[in-house]
Amino acid sequence: MRIPIDREIDTPLYQQIGAYLKKAILSGKLTADTRLPAYRQLANDLGVNRATIENAYALLESEGLVFSRMGSGTYVLPQNLFPLSKQNKEATLPLWQKNFQTEESTFTASQLDELLYKSKHPHPISFASGISDTRQFPSDEFRKILQSVMRRDQISALEYGESNGYAPLREGITNILASQGLQTNAENVLITAGSQQAIFLVAQVLLKPNDIILVESPTYSVAIDLFRALGFQIIGIPMDSQGMQVEKLEKLLQQHHPKLIYTIPNFHNPTGTCLSSPRRRELILLAEKYNVPILEDDFVGDLRYEGHAQPSLKALDPNGQVIYVGTFSKMLMPGLRVGFIVADGPVYDRLLNFKRLSDLATSTLIQRALDAYVTVGRYQTYLHRSSQAFRKRRDVMVDSIRKYLPSKVVFDIPTGGLFIWLKLPNGIFAEDLLPLACKEGVSFMPGNYFFVDNKDGKEWLRLNFASQPVEDIEEGIIRLGKAMRGMKA
Amino acid sequence: MRIPIDREIDTPLYQQIGAYLKKAILSGKLTADTRLPAYRQLANDLGVNRATIENAYALLESEGLVFSRMGSGTYVLPQNLFPLSKQNKEATLPLWQKNFQTEESTFTASQLDELLYKSKHPHPISFASGISDTRQFPSDEFRKILQSVMRRDQISALEYGESNGYAPLREGITNILASQGLQTNAENVLITAGSQQAIFLVAQVLLKPNDIILVESPTYSVAIDLFRALGFQIIGIPMDSQGMQVEKLEKLLQQHHPKLIYTIPNFHNPTGTCLSSPRRRELILLAEKYNVPILEDDFVGDLRYEGHAQPSLKALDPNGQVIYVGTFSKMLMPGLRVGFIVADGPVYDRLLNFKRLSDLATSTLIQRALDAYVTVGRYQTYLHRSSQAFRKRRDVMVDSIRKYLPSKVVFDIPTGGLFIWLKLPNGIFAEDLLPLACKEGVSFMPGNYFFVDNKDGKEWLRLNFASQPVEDIEEGIIRLGKAMRGMKA
Repeated sequence: MRIPIDREIDTPLYQQIGAYLKKAILSGKLTADTRLPAYRQLANDLGVNRATIENAYALLESEGLVFSRMGSGTYVLPQNLFPLSKQNKEATLPLWQKNFQTEESTFTASQLDELLYKSKHPHPISFASGISDTRQFPSDEFRKILQSVMRRDQISALEYGESNGYAPLREGITNILASQGLQTNAENVLITAGSQQAIFLVAQVLLKPNDIILVESPTYSVAIDLFRALGFQIIGIPMDSQGMQVEKLEKLLQQHHPKLIYTIPNFHNPTGTCLSSPRRRELILLAEKYNVPILEDDFVGDLRYEGHAQPSLKALDPNGQVIYVGTFSKMLMPGLRVGFIVADGPVYDRLLNFKRLSDLATSTLIQRALDAYVTVGRYQTYLHRSSQAFRKRRDVMVDSIRKYLPSKVVFDIPTGGLFIWLKLPNGIFAEDLLPLACKEGVSFMPGNYFFVDNKDGKEWLRLNFASQPVEDIEEGIIRLGKAMRGMKA
Repeated sequence: MRIPIDREIDTPLYQQIGAYLKKAILSGKLTADTRLPAYRQLANDLGVNRATIENAYALLESEGLVFSRMGSGTYVLPQNLFPLSKQNKEATLPLWQKNFQTEESTFTASQLDELLYKSKHPHPISFASGISDTRQFPSDEFRKILQSVMRRDQISALEYGESNGYAPLREGITNILASQGLQTNAENVLITAGSQQAIFLVAQVLLKPNDIILVESPTYSVAIDLFRALGFQIIGIPMDSQGMQVEKLEKLLQQHHPKLIYTIPNFHNPTGTCLSSPRRRELILLAEKYNVPILEDDFVGDLRYEGHAQPSLKALDPNGQVIYVGTFSKMLMPGLRVGFIVADGPVYDRLLNFKRLSDLATSTLIQRALDAYVTVGRYQTYLHRSSQAFRKRRDVMVDSIRKYLPSKVVFDIPTGGLFIWLKLPNGIFAEDLLPLACKEGVSFMPGNYFFVDNKDGKEWLRLNFASQPVEDIEEGIIRLGKAMRGMKA
């Protein structure tokens, strides 16, 4: 035990030690029945006399904090707890800490859901989430696989892995990608802690503070937060129902000399649109012409309900212009935190080095379990089942919107992915609607969260149709309709 | 399947599709016995006629790449594989990729060990590792706990967790810390992907490129790599056998106005020294006086073999000047990648926000399992057992050095931790010794890796005494002695 004691002050050592232990016991940090170190051991640890420790423990015993049992030791007694204050009020905060003003930041989906749960509605329904329905996932099957991986690999499953990721998993990912239309090598795959870390690494490696990044407007809100926190200038590219308006891109490239184009071409977050085929080729040509790398975020690119498949940008890219980011988090198990980057050329080694510096490697155990779980066959089965289930949910949401929301709402029907992007009737702002909706027991993501300037898009909102069962979708939209009528009144 | 096809070029579509699949089959990305999509499905996916797919598959069949089984589908046949080349040689690398020259970087411990294994010695012995002996860890017990956690929590174990970490684990960490002499609250604990991510987050939040950071010289090599990659100016503080020479600190603070002091006060990496008590208090006073935060890396602070315990800097810090980093990786299970930050004041929220932007959260499943595993009692038992085992190993290494190495080597006996820091006789450089040592079947970390300027410390080397069983330690040092005699000749 490394108790801080000070020999230079007047307070006797036994009192200092007693005071330290008293604070730990009263705050609950040393819990009831914890055995305190033996006299001799603690005396030795702290370099004091045995009598000092005996006196300290006697002090605690006299205050009813501990009891000693002959021949067995000294034990903490149950207490009415006085938690330590989070911030020591008397403490003088160091000056450098005062720079850390609380930043203004948008709510995350889980914070929005807290808002929803605070409404005390008996059956709250959230359309705010950014992921698919985890209840689809066969957790029992995964548990058994995890078990057999640990039996098989023993201690190796708990050792450091290579920074680029577990080799068989990287190989397995190339098989899944090939079965979906993207051919690459295991040496071009870099395992990351979810796609968030993948985006983070690419941004870190390719840009410096004040560099310019082009993003679709709107785009994934946490990417905006990230790029802002890294000090980049973020410029939006307008979108329409065919995705990014690539015809407006060239002027932006000439004007801003960006260091990166970040795009979600497949079932875009938040709009659900899919970039058209001609625009895909044009985008790659422009990126080549202006020497700007593309970061393709393919978070649910395989989750298609109808229409023709669009190849990923990476599959169309002959020269290593595109860095591709995929994930198992959004579709399979978000809590595992496993995503990956596919990159060609020298940038791969730079990304790998930054991965190593960021966190050395992603959990070996999880990677080994995922490798054993995610075969091409299982992935396709899961994809097929999810597509069927989510298509149905989308249809129910579309029907419900038509039935229960004012006819003036505007939206496109997404052909894949997780989201419906909906424009409210004139004069209604999503952020104003949100508290009323939560009161009715339903939540969503306000559209302005997805814009670089969050004064834009106030009349839009994002609904996740994939995360709730069919019966809750209709009910949720009914509630949303009620909330909207409440606003007009 | 999202096969890229181009309707604007002359090559017929069936040939384009056939060529794509052929490449995937020959490179092994589509493995033998994989079932290709049904005609109708792939035709629909790609928006082409069914006949186009039939022709494409017929082309593949004529080349012996697939076979079709009536009423069942088309399957990939086993092939002699031609792996895809990692870098498409004909491809023109984008200009922006050319900025990514291969950086000069020191070897990691695992790269050094590859060097060792290449020597083809029948029984190689590595003293290069930066962690303790994972074979100590009861992996079976952990497997059972993981299993019961998954049974208990089901799908919740696989969902996103909070960015600050699983609350019961944060609470449990405060109990362990209190039992070791540091009192804090669960709200001040932030779970990270190992201590590497913790250092990364603190560096990101507190410094900008070109800012100055003070570090002990020598210090943890991956921290140097990280600070350099983030564009900081790194200034070394000299050390002696009592740790950082704090009396030289004030001048450096006045001269350089650093934004952070990074220190490993307890069983320092690589030197094994422990910062003396008066220096601890002086360090904190100086940091307060000059308004510089301290990052305390306590990677093995509890792993003491003798002498008195020194309180962590954080335990001596009344005002939130010290940000504390701890880990379960080095002592327990490195592959799990779980560490933590303890921070007071507004900087906590900033660190949390950066954690969220970096990777959203650390794997929930691993956190839940760790929470169920790491009780105060288990931690102390593990610590006790490890201390006993590693003390013995240290003693064997010290005896072996005295017996088998030239009497001119210089080293202090560490009172805890993992490392012996050893100075070679005049004129022998560790990097020159390394290949000879590997040939004899033993490895170590050359000392210059741990210096800001890696021209310094060439005559030093770091030996990990904790990672090998007793019988290999003596043998390893015998081999090292042989290699040293080989150099003199």
